[in-house]
Amino acid sequence: MKKNYTVDCPIRKTLEILGGKWKLLIIFQFRADQPVRYGELKKKIPDISEKMLIQELKVLVENGLLLKHSYPEIPPRVEYTITKRGKEVLPIIDTLAEFGMQYVKTV
Amino acid sequence: MKKNYTVDCPIRKTLEILGGKWKLLIIFQFRADQPVRYGELKKKIPDISEKMLIQELKVLVENGLLLKHSYPEIPPRVEYTITKRGKEVLPIIDTLAEFGMQYVKTV
Repeated sequence: MKKNYTVDCPIRKTLEILGGKWKLLIIFQFRADQPVRYGELKKKIPDISEKMLIQELKVLVENGLLLKHSYPEIPPRVEYTITKRGKEVLPIIDTLAEFGMQYVKTV
Repeated sequence: MKKNYTVDCPIRKTLEILGGKWKLLIIFQFRADQPVRYGELKKKIPDISEKMLIQELKVLVENGLLLKHSYPEIPPRVEYTITKRGKEVLPIIDTLAEFGMQYVKTV
């Protein structure tokens, strides 16, 4: 009997796609529109667990926000790039960061 | 040794204040800038548990986004209003909703 409220509500849908502690922080690393290696992401977000980073990247790829590129080199190279849809998230992040600034300043 | 990354990062700070599944949906109910009774919130967001709604409202009041007003009537009346700071969240919600629209349409 649980109704799926997300189907019709764009806010819920967005929270589903971008929600959680990490997705926006990951997308933010692609603001320069350059490929980012998996190892760089780990370095840029040092407090995310490897398991969580892998899982969040998978969801971001599934939702069409990032693309994964695996190069069969030795050692293997894995890079991610941001998609057109992913880039639409960047202004959202700016808005959120702007809102957070007042708290960072006053806290 | 766990570094508190939120202190300096406005994105993390915002996610801390607005993160989770419900806070934005709650704030959205105040878009008309009118007081909203506790019971109305429950009706507007039917899939939130009572415990979670109370907890999220408490955090929103603590962070200065909502104000709580208790009227000693019988039965007791509890209303919430949105603050100036809370109103700053409304454009963020609009941006998020706009982003979600394309997913709602195509899914």
